[in-house]
Formats: sequence, C-alpha cells, structure tokens
Amino acid sequence: MPKFSPVLYPFFNIIRLSYVELEVSDLEASEKFYSDLLGLVVTARNDNQLFLRCMEEREHHSIVLTKGSTPQCRGLGFKVFDEGDLAGIENYFTEQGHEVDWIEKPHLRKVLKVRDNLGMPLEFYSRMDLLPTIHQKYEIYKGARPLRIDHVNMFSTDVDSSAEFYNNLGFRLTEYTEDEETGRMWAAWLHRKGTVHDVAFTNGSGPRLHHVAFFLMNPLNIIDLLDIMSTSGYLGNIERGPGRHGISNAFFLYIRDPDNHRIELYCCDYQTIDPDHEPIKWDLKDPTRQTLWGQPAPRSWFEEGSLFEGAEVKEPLQAGTPIVAP
Amino acid sequence: MPKFSPVLYPFFNIIRLSYVELEVSDLEASEKFYSDLLGLVVTARNDNQLFLRCMEEREHHSIVLTKGSTPQCRGLGFKVFDEGDLAGIENYFTEQGHEVDWIEKPHLRKVLKVRDNLGMPLEFYSRMDLLPTIHQKYEIYKGARPLRIDHVNMFSTDVDSSAEFYNNLGFRLTEYTEDEETGRMWAAWLHRKGTVHDVAFTNGSGPRLHHVAFFLMNPLNIIDLLDIMSTSGYLGNIERGPGRHGISNAFFLYIRDPDNHRIELYCCDYQTIDPDHEPIKWDLKDPTRQTLWGQPAPRSWFEEGSLFEGAEVKEPLQAGTPIVAP
Amino acid sequence: MPKFSPVLYPFFNIIRLSYVELEVSDLEASEKFYSDLLGLVVTARNDNQLFLRCMEEREHHSIVLTKGSTPQCRGLGFKVFDEGDLAGIENYFTEQGHEVDWIEKPHLRKVLKVRDNLGMPLEFYSRMDLLPTIHQKYEIYKGARPLRIDHVNMFSTDVDSSAEFYNNLGFRLTEYTEDEETGRMWAAWLHRKGTVHDVAFTNGSGPRLHHVAFFLMNPLNIIDLLDIMSTSGYLGNIERGPGRHGISNAFFLYIRDPDNHRIELYCCDYQTIDPDHEPIKWDLKDPTRQTLWGQPAPRSWFEEGSLFEGAEVKEPLQAGTPIVAP
Amino acid sequence: MPKFSPVLYPFFNIIRLSYVELEVSDLEASEKFYSDLLGLVVTARNDNQLFLRCMEEREHHSIVLTKGSTPQCRGLGFKVFDEGDLAGIENYFTEQGHEVDWIEKPHLRKVLKVRDNLGMPLEFYSRMDLLPTIHQKYEIYKGARPLRIDHVNMFSTDVDSSAEFYNNLGFRLTEYTEDEETGRMWAAWLHRKGTVHDVAFTNGSGPRLHHVAFFLMNPLNIIDLLDIMSTSGYLGNIERGPGRHGISNAFFLYIRDPDNHRIELYCCDYQTIDPDHEPIKWDLKDPTRQTLWGQPAPRSWFEEGSLFEGAEVKEPLQAGTPIVAP
Repeated sequence: MPKFSPVLYPFFNIIRLSYVELEVSDLEASEKFYSDLLGLVVTARNDNQLFLRCMEEREHHSIVLTKGSTPQCRGLGFKVFDEGDLAGIENYFTEQGHEVDWIEKPHLRKVLKVRDNLGMPLEFYSRMDLLPTIHQKYEIYKGARPLRIDHVNMFSTDVDSSAEFYNNLGFRLTEYTEDEETGRMWAAWLHRKGTVHDVAFTNGSGPRLHHVAFFLMNPLNIIDLLDIMSTSGYLGNIERGPGRHGISNAFFLYIRDPDNHRIELYCCDYQTIDPDHEPIKWDLKDPTRQTLWGQPAPRSWFEEGSLFEGAEVKEPLQAGTPIVAP
Repeated sequence: MPKFSPVLYPFFNIIRLSYVELEVSDLEASEKFYSDLLGLVVTARNDNQLFLRCMEEREHHSIVLTKGSTPQCRGLGFKVFDEGDLAGIENYFTEQGHEVDWIEKPHLRKVLKVRDNLGMPLEFYSRMDLLPTIHQKYEIYKGARPLRIDHVNMFSTDVDSSAEFYNNLGFRLTEYTEDEETGRMWAAWLHRKGTVHDVAFTNGSGPRLHHVAFFLMNPLNIIDLLDIMSTSGYLGNIERGPGRHGISNAFFLYIRDPDNHRIELYCCDYQTIDPDHEPIKWDLKDPTRQTLWGQPAPRSWFEEGSLFEGAEVKEPLQAGTPIVAP
Repeated sequence: MPKFSPVLYPFFNIIRLSYVELEVSDLEASEKFYSDLLGLVVTARNDNQLFLRCMEEREHHSIVLTKGSTPQCRGLGFKVFDEGDLAGIENYFTEQGHEVDWIEKPHLRKVLKVRDNLGMPLEFYSRMDLLPTIHQKYEIYKGARPLRIDHVNMFSTDVDSSAEFYNNLGFRLTEYTEDEETGRMWAAWLHRKGTVHDVAFTNGSGPRLHHVAFFLMNPLNIIDLLDIMSTSGYLGNIERGPGRHGISNAFFLYIRDPDNHRIELYCCDYQTIDPDHEPIKWDLKDPTRQTLWGQPAPRSWFEEGSLFEGAEVKEPLQAGTPIVAP
Repeated sequence: MPKFSPVLYPFFNIIRLSYVELEVSDLEASEKFYSDLLGLVVTARNDNQLFLRCMEEREHHSIVLTKGSTPQCRGLGFKVFDEGDLAGIENYFTEQGHEVDWIEKPHLRKVLKVRDNLGMPLEFYSRMDLLPTIHQKYEIYKGARPLRIDHVNMFSTDVDSSAEFYNNLGFRLTEYTEDEETGRMWAAWLHRKGTVHDVAFTNGSGPRLHHVAFFLMNPLNIIDLLDIMSTSGYLGNIERGPGRHGISNAFFLYIRDPDNHRIELYCCDYQTIDPDHEPIKWDLKDPTRQTLWGQPAPRSWFEEGSLFEGAEVKEPLQAGTPIVAP
C-alpha cells in the first residue's frame, strides 16, 4: 500500500526543513511584507540581507532575504542532528555522483551545499546561532502571528523520482496524488518532522519553488491577515483561499510576496510520526483533494513558481495540468 | 449624504424580520438539511409543514417549510410592537391602494397579509407562541450553531423604489451600491433591528428571494459547517464563500437547500441604531464591496433566486449584471 | 412574570449608553492602558483630557479620561434620538423633583445633566461629532480589538428602586437575580439598545460604578489580551475570568485600569428587542448565574468599585454579600 | 544549561506515549463521559472493556477503560519503532535489574511489560491494529473534538530520578521547575514525539497518575466543552481552567471523569524536535509557570491523583506543596 518502504535507520538524521533563502529586488518592500504584514521578526540585517524568524523559533532565522536582480530561491536549509550526519550526507551524495561543497554562511556552523536529483540547491547544517525565546512575548505578535516555518513545495518534472530521492534521504511519504491511468504520482508529500510534510512535489516544469509555508495557531489568524491585506494595499497579493486542503487536512491561504514568491499560511494538519503511518492516496480526478470545500485554484497557482538559483527548468514527464478553474 | 431621511416616528413600529415560509418538495430532505446539517431545532411538524427555530430564539419558529410542488417563498414575516401597529399598517397599505388581508396561521395571533410595491408577500403580526429558552442548552447545539434569523435579501427590478418603499415603513438605509453613471442604486441594505439589515435589495429580475440569512457566533462555525458539508454529501450545495463582505463587513457563506433556496450563514456585522448613523456608499465598480478579499461570486449567485408565491417576475429597470467571475 | 411592564411608548427615546467619563491620576499611564493595551483609538487629547473610541464607533468618543486627583466616574453619557427627547427628559426629571442642568462639553451639542434616584450623574445629548469609519481599517486593530462600548454596571443600595427608575425611563429588564427569601431583587439587567443591557445594578454600597464593558468580536480576543497582559507588566490588573456568565450568556474578562476602574471585555450575548421578550429570573443561590462554569469571583470583584462624582455612598438596604470565593 | 545531555542515539527508539488503560467502576457512565461528552470514538467493546480513539488516530485505541473495583491506572502504553526496539528495551531493563514480562493484549502484537524506577507499569509494543482514517469524517466530531492523546503527567516522589530515568530511555527535557533553594527539580516535562512532552513528573506522593491529556484544535473547543459540561450535569467535574500554562505555553482545562481520573484538554504547545532545543527553567516561586494569567489551581489539583496498579505509594523526598490557592 505505501508507495515506498520507510527508511528504517538512515545513515544520517535530517531533523527538518529549517530555512529558505529568497532573492528579492527591494529589501525595504520585502521587510514591510514579511515583518509588518506577516509578522515575522527581523533578527539581523545588513546592506544586502535581512534575516527573520517566527514567534516560536529559537534558531536565528528561518527566512533569509537577499537583495538581487533575479527573484529566485537561493537555497533550502535542512537542519541535521549533528556533525556526524553532515559527514554521512557528504558520503551519500558523493557516492551518488553528486558534487558536494562546504560553504560559509552567517550564523551557521559548517554548511554542506549539494544539489538534489533535479538540481535544486540544498544546504545541510547541524548548528545555527540560537536566540532567546520570544514565544511568550505576546505583545510583539502581529499580522498572521506565524509560529514556525513548516514546509516547502516544489514543481518537479518527475514526481516519482523526486519522492524516491527524498525517501532515500529518510523522508517518509504521507499523502500522494496518483494518475490512475498511468499509475504515476502527480504530487507527493514527504516529512521528517512528524507532520504532513517538510517537502512536497507537484508535477510541472521544474525544478521550481511553488511555495514556502508558515504554521499558524488557528484559522482566525488567516482571516485576520486577509482583512488586513484587503484594506492596506495588499489585495492584489492574495492568490488563493482561505480553504481547507483535502490533502493534509490543513486550513490554508496562498499569497504572493512583492517579488511574486508564493507564501502559504497553514494550520491544523496532523501528526505522522508512527512508523506504520500509511500514506493516503488521492485520485487526480477528485477535486476535494485540492480544496475540500470544492473551490478551484486559479490558473496562476498551477503555473507560476520561483526559479532555483543555478537550476535549469525542464518540461515535466507528464503533460497536462489539472486546472479546475479557468 | 444619506439617500433617505430616516423616518423619525413611524405611525407603526416594525420590530424585525422574524420568519420566512419556504415551499419545499421533500420535507424529509429539508429536515435533514435545516435540522441535522444546519442545526436549527424542529419545534412542530405535521404532514405538510415543519417549523424550526434557532438557538437564541424564543418565538415558536423563524423558518416554516411547507410541502408543495413549487419551490417558492410563500411569505416574509415581520414582528410588530403590538396590535395597534397592525392597525397602523392596515391603514397605511389601504391608503396606498394596496389590498390587505387578515389571515390565520398556526402559532400566530392575527396576521395581516399584504404585498409590497413589487408584489412580494409580507405578513405582519404582533404575537407568536413563545417557547422556553434553549440558548444555554449547549449539548443540543450542532451544525452551524445558528443563533437567530438575521435578514432576507431580494432581487428587485427597481432598487430605488424598493428602498424608498421600505424607508417609508420605517426601515433605515445602512449601506448601498450606486451606479455612478446613472446615479441609481444597484443594491440597498435597510434595517429595523439595529444591525446592518433586516431586508436588502439587489438589481435583477424580480421580485425574487435571493437568500435568507442566519446569524452565527463566529467564523469558525462557518468553517466547521464547510468541513461537514464537504464530507457528508453536501459538497454540491456550497455556492460561495467563505469570505468577508465589504458591504456589512460580515463573514459569510452561501449554500443552497435541497430545493435550491439560498441560505446565508452570517456573522460579525455591526450596530446601526444611532439615528445619525450615515449610510455607507459603495461604487458598483469596487470589487471589494462584494468580497473584501477580492474573490468573485459565481454566476449562479448573481442570477438565481426563489420565486415569491403569487408575484409575477419582471425584468429590471437597469440592464446588465456586475458579474465578476465567469 | 416580568418584574416590570415594559414602557410601550416612552415620552422620550433614549438610544443607548454611549460614553463614560473617568477621572484618572496619570493620563500617560491611562493612555498606555486604554490605547496600547486594550486597543481603543485616541481621537483627541489636551492637557487634561483624552478622548477614545472603539473600532466600530462613529461618534467622536465612548471613553473620556480626565486628569484629576480622585479616581472617580464623572458621568455616564446616553444618546437620545433627537433634541425633542432632551426636552422630554428635562420635563420628566423636573416633574420628579430632580435638578436639571444644561452643560457644555467638547464634541457634544447641548448636554442635559441630571442625577438619578441614587445620585448617579447622567448626561443626555442627541448629537456628538461624527468621525470617519475605521471598522475596516484592519491594520490598526490591536489589543482586545474592542468594537464598541456595551454597558455599565453599578452597585445600588436598592436594586428594586434602581430598576424601577430606569424602567420608567424606557429601559427594559432582561435578566435579574432574586433573593427568594425576601422577594427582593439582588441584581438587575436593563437595556435600551436590544442586547442584554445598557445598565445593570447589583446590591451593595452605592451608588458606585462596578464596571464599564466593551463588546468584542469573539472569545479569542479575550485570550489574546490575557496573554499580552500576563507578559507585559499587566498581570496584576487581571481580576476575574475568562469565563461565561450564566446571566447574559456572555463570555467575559474583568480587568482593572491603572486607577482601579474596572473594565469588562465582553462578547456573545443575545438579542432582546422583542416587546414580549420575558426577563429571565435567577436564584441568588445558583452559582452558575455568575459563572456558568462554576468558578467563583474574587472578593475584590464583589466589594470594590469607583465612586461617582458628587454622589454620596450609602449602605445597601439588603445586608450580606453573595461571596462564593474567599 | 540543560539539566541532562540529550541521549543522541538511544539503543532503542520509543516513538510516543500512545495509550492509557484506566480501571473504572461503571462502563456505561464512563462511555457517556469519554464518548458522548468528550467526543472520543468507541472502536471496540466487550463486557469488561471499552476501547476508544481520537479523531486523528489510526491505531485502534488510545484509551482502554476496564471495569474494576479500584479506580486506578493499569498501564501506560508506548509505541516503539519496531520489534528490534522491544528487544533493546528488554535488554536494557534486564541489565538495570528490572523484571520484564511479555504479555498478551487485544489489538496489540507482542507487549513488553516493565515497571519504571518508581514502580509505574509501562507497556511497550511496536504494532497495534490500524483502523481506517476518520479525521475527515467531520459529521462525527463532537464534544471537545479530541484529535489525539498527547501526554501523561505523574506525581513522583523524586522528580530528579524520574527525569533521569526517562532521559536514559531517550526522552528529552523541555521545561522544568527548580527549587532554587535546594537545586532539585520540582517538576519536569520530557518528550519523544517533538512536542513539549509525552511524560511529565511533579513532586508529590507517588507514583500516581496526575492526568491524561488530549490534544485539541483550538481554545474554542475547550470553551464549547465547558458550556456543555456546565449545562448537562457535569458542572462538578470541572476542576481547573480554562487557562494558559506558563510552562508549555498551552491552553488547558482539567476535568475529572466519573471515577475521578483527571483528564486534561490541551492545545497550542510548540515544536521541540531540534537536538539543541534547550530546556526552559522556571522558578518554583513564579506563579505564572502554572497559569500564565495568574489564577491559582485548586487544592485538589495539587493533591489528588490515580493510583497505579501494583505500585506502592510513598512520600516525596521534598516536603511541602506549592499550593497557591486555598
């Protein structure tokens, strides 16, 4: 029934998706969006970069905004258990014939930079600077009151291969959409941290970043954000939602940042840590998998995404787009 | 600035919209919808009729479902202060050349039946049977947990005339949409009970009932209802929402009953009792008046409605439909 | 069944409780409390006074804070329908042998100042300066997100007399606590605006102001406020709650301002506009009338209150205090 | 800073606390409490036992109610990764001089029964019967809408020893209360599943079960449950709350079942999976650690608990009780 055997004891222990670095054209506009509007807290800044964290996070940052001329994603950061795991990952990627690189990044100790099977830039590290807790500084909560980074979602030209690649890194499948006619996966959700996902892949030209998601307390935070966006100049940045996903069962909203990077506000998914937790299979023709309540997503949601730095975009193996709305 | 002078001391005191009688084809299916799904409480039944009330209501019913072959609205009930007000209304309608009728209805003492300027059937009464309170019987709350009937919304062929007619009955305008080019009203919201409306009118073929609305505690009740509808066979009955109206500022959901009568679940509008409370004017071209967050309504929402018993449907004075969604 | 006949057509039409003027010792500390913490919006200020309104209010202010050496309530403001009603009230109080006074207050046109049967200072007016709406300026909502002033609650030395006095002014009883042994009322809730109350009275040394209440959107706003107060230096200002009142069915929190004036954050009561809406009677020995969930109120809540300017405090006719908690 | 070094690679992988077996005197009364009132779903029953699960759980049960004459806890169930982990645990306990036992239990494959350092009965297993998902069957959600079992809390006679014992089993400390004078821990929270805790210990006569906690969607589910309990015969079963814990930051309610077993309804704690997640230390004299908003807990909450089958209760090493409320 499961598409993949869970990897019982991986040679290395990836804890979770922990940061995303986005290239943006105007740091000031982005700060207004991520800090004033969404409510992330700025933890450091310099002429070229802005670092932010959510209310519950103790690591120095979960979002890095880097000034640049191409609105692309420069890397996805994954925290591992300890330095031994970095060595394990280095060996694994080297054995698989992938190039590996040790790089320097501010606030991080030893970063291993690699590319996945489709060319997406991944950054593994074990320790980031830690900051004092702010989760009980309630007077500074604002906007959507984001608690933590939750996951990233990518367009993949070959979802079966992507899912298998991450499954080999220890990620476990929780839900997936299957094209009943071809038997191929159209979309896949995989996790390390015990929720529905750390990473997900959807069929499409890729690799491209579909969205970065933040976890919120409850659906009213999303309603509050919608009210604020609609009446403070961000109406055009609302793309899809609010709604409940059939897949993941989460309450969601999709918005676009000033450079069109897509952000999801997300809450209320479920715990998946049991080793015998079986993936849920959805039929590509079932509209409630996208929105339990039936509302279709707009065309932009199916087609648009952010480039990954240094990764060439290719056409997907499977043609067609399951566009429900015009 | 206000389109109409508020009537300071009407000759009669209409308290509020208090019930709606709907003709339905299958009482059992309707009971499942209004009672099991929405959560209204059945207070009486016979072979041909079902009476229901909401959790906060003490009058015997706010919804009457009558078995019949035409899915139409058989009457809108308005509670008045006392019998003297019924006499005042009788005089007023008679003077205006309208026919008046005293009819018998179960659970009601003395009902005055008239038709408004467009032919809509109105029923005025001062006393209905009262029932013991159930608002603190929390174990029987279910579905959308409806607290009370809130308002009705109608298609009118001439919104200016409708608004003036009800203003003369003591209803006060709170918000309206104006066609800037013609200076005519496209839609109007008028109240007696101190909220945004008891009755509203939108330009269209009419008179027809657009929807009946129930007031809920908070937006999560609407989200709960959507989750239930999507997973218990009512997915196709969801028509529009959830969202926030620009007009009225209320959080809403529109669904259709088994006979396609439209029901709105509604919460969070505002108090309007001050005599110098000025109507808010919206431009017909402003999309946020319909949905603050920008999502368009589907075509059915603009076009479909329930007939009124005995009222001939005519074409509106103003052509066109402000359809945003395809 | 009702303790009092509702006054069908009063000689004058009081719309609602609309403002409260409080004397405070430190305007800066009070501004921090009412504006930064609770979320009211400052609409005007001078050396001696601060004016504030809630998010849904269009009148210039609902709270006036006046610098002074005695932390007392200087007046309760009631809006009436028009100037004719002011004349009616003037006549009525004069006939009853009460002194009447026409005074000047900023932002108000013609204010009639009188004292009620126990000496409480009341201010009637028909028109206050109006301000542009801010209820859809969601980016400025903060704190408890207060929507509007809801009611005031007073200690009365004779609740039966207080209730009768206000009933004669057109206020209608919605709920009351009766001492079964004496047949006297221990507490009474009366309204003009169609909710559970504009004014309420509880047996005790008086007249004194027990609290001023603001209406909120939903219980989560109260939880948010508690989280903020607990972690930003206002822990000691939390007095009672959160909880649900048996009486009024409302969700509540009581806090104390820097001068110990008591503020209630309140939501979710019910509509009471029907003329045949019967008062609900509670037994003094039923603990759920105070808190439906059974938690007792602290001693301070039963004993402490703010003085009214110029009103001598006397002992109540009925001895004893229904203190449940030690 | 951390009281204990996290165990990096335990010899065995305990996934989470997964079930609790409680002895109850009246299965029918308990079914009404856990199923009708709280909202758990009955998955199997026989003359002597009732099995229940929460809405998100796929394992056959998280609560077992066994008819008996002593209202005690008969065992705490912990799911492990696979059978190899059971062997590891068997070795570990044997080496430590603890007795081990392989027992049969319905719906479970191979159960290893042991006792911890204080005599508490623990049951380890790797596979339980799985059931079809019900988390999207929204029409059957009711009561508190419990999503999953979250944790258990115990009175320990020696919190330092208990914390060390579970730390050696791979549990990691997240928060703790320290008696500043003695340097000893008064209470400790430890987790396996990446939240604030699977198990917690508080100083007191023990070992005894303080409570079993279920995880809910949001605070409004707790408010709904309180409203239902207060008005349907369960007012006396409400013990403490609602409130926010300083420790864990969770929103809580404590209630007692018909045999006085204590149940916590719990939501909104935080993610703790990072290996460098440092424990938060609280001072025993800080009242906000118990309730962020300052309300004290009742005496019963500090003193009463359920016995563990076969475990002798002893006096704690540390005398005194940090009782704030009388």
